[in-house]
Amino acid sequence: MHITASVFINDDESGLHNDFERWLEELAPEKLYSRYQHNGYEDNGDAHLKRTIMGREVTIAITNNDFDSGPWKQIFCKKKDGKGDRRMLVWDDWRIITLSW
Amino acid sequence: MHITASVFINDDESGLHNDFERWLEELAPEKLYSRYQHNGYEDNGDAHLKRTIMGREVTIAITNNDFDSGPWKQIFCKKKDGKGDRRMLVWDDWRIITLSW
Amino acid sequence: MHITASVFINDDESGLHNDFERWLEELAPEKLYSRYQHNGYEDNGDAHLKRTIMGREVTIAITNNDFDSGPWKQIFCKKKDGKGDRRMLVWDDWRIITLSW
Repeated sequence: MHITASVFINDDESGLHNDFERWLEELAPEKLYSRYQHNGYEDNGDAHLKRTIMGREVTIAITNNDFDSGPWKQIFCKKKDGKGDRRMLVWDDWRIITLSW
Repeated sequence: MHITASVFINDDESGLHNDFERWLEELAPEKLYSRYQHNGYEDNGDAHLKRTIMGREVTIAITNNDFDSGPWKQIFCKKKDGKGDRRMLVWDDWRIITLSW
Repeated sequence: MHITASVFINDDESGLHNDFERWLEELAPEKLYSRYQHNGYEDNGDAHLKRTIMGREVTIAITNNDFDSGPWKQIFCKKKDGKGDRRMLVWDDWRIITLSW
């Protein structure tokens, strides 16, 4: 579970993804780095805040052995900075699943 | 699960609901529609962002066969635009329940 | 489950915690109290909004009978105003746990 990565569900549409990127940058700008007290050894203070907006986990139904996210939606796992390895947790009783990063 | 609908828990108080509406409109204004790249075939780019703030699912205790959300709180399911049908998932083992839209 | 308290996971680093406090105050200022319709009998309208950003529940893995939140991360339970008692729900099958306040 990498703390600057988010797991979220939304439409798989590139325009929307660009909207999210711009919006998150407005709400929690990456720079100036000195804006964040967290940015000493690291420089990813903004990524912690952006991830908080986007969320860390989702719950999703399983229908016919597949994620039931609807016709347009996908589960996304986006990392807000370039650091670290990733691990995904899956809680699965074949009815509803919880994913976190 | 409609992607512009949110499921959340908060006080059932009309002033607070108005505060949420105003606040979400400040954080992700509906207009100008051209502000969002997502707004081509659709015009609900803001609703995707607002829903991200409000959340998509909740976990709640069951006590004496009823939701245990406390004396003032309610579970709300609000749609951020006027589109589509709704479906609710319930994961229930009579201890804690997860709801998503 | 107190509605102005949040349960979230993030790094246990004081600079980051200060960044969160400042950021939440920017997104949902405490004052002027009259800014929020909710602030009549209560004055914690901002706390309801801040809590919405920070989240109300987390899902976390259990490894070797302990929370597996990684080397730096902790689960935090922060109350956004000074009101009320606290109760924590735990859904635990010793694989993944969901906490809410």
